[in-house]
Amino acid sequence: MGISHARRKSKGSVAERDLIHKFWGASWAAVRVAGSGSTQFPSPDLLVGNNLRKLALEVKATKDKKKYFSKQEINDLKYFALKFGAEPWVVIKFDRENYYFLNIEDLEETPASFTASLELAKRRGFIFEELIK
Amino acid sequence: MGISHARRKSKGSVAERDLIHKFWGASWAAVRVAGSGSTQFPSPDLLVGNNLRKLALEVKATKDKKKYFSKQEINDLKYFALKFGAEPWVVIKFDRENYYFLNIEDLEETPASFTASLELAKRRGFIFEELIK
Repeated sequence: MGISHARRKSKGSVAERDLIHKFWGASWAAVRVAGSGSTQFPSPDLLVGNNLRKLALEVKATKDKKKYFSKQEINDLKYFALKFGAEPWVVIKFDRENYYFLNIEDLEETPASFTASLELAKRRGFIFEELIK
Repeated sequence: MGISHARRKSKGSVAERDLIHKFWGASWAAVRVAGSGSTQFPSPDLLVGNNLRKLALEVKATKDKKKYFSKQEINDLKYFALKFGAEPWVVIKFDRENYYFLNIEDLEETPASFTASLELAKRRGFIFEELIK
């Protein structure tokens, strides 16, 4: 594991913890899922809910202007959300920007991946306050 | 940490993994919660759901005939379930017995803790197949 990977990983963890605080602060419950990406069953990064809604979140942080999701990540997120009975969302934290919550249908699909640029996130995404309305 | 604590801890982890397999096998989604018991926010051991129900589970395994839950554990479980919008359940795996799912109201309350004996679990608890019906 190189330095850049470690840094990317750490950024993602900071974003996850930050989001957990935001949701609890808004009177939702939020948890990090253990072993996300390392178990045989699909699982999101975060699972949050209140009495009305449940959200399965895949969280990414990046210093770039564009973020990639593998087909597997997105398919797992959709599958998990379907089985659990939750809304699937991806959350992207671009440096010095808000968190943007995006519907999977709003990601750009390429043969190899799903992507979201900062521009797309701003155009189609929801910021936290909009999401929880 | 003594050997007996490590062994108890390990029994609990085995029970958690086993339950996750059982729920996925029954077409529910199930996840382990990261850092349960070590974050500032209350969190259950497992969170499971399907389109109709969401369950927050506190899981214990024991070789004894009686299991204790601290007041804090039970209060945290109730609080989390209330905020998330889930049913709070405790799950106890006594050696060589089924998993018993118990409502919090069915635990015996003492000044210092909540307890469930094997006898109570058999009388008031649900086994897996009953729980998911």
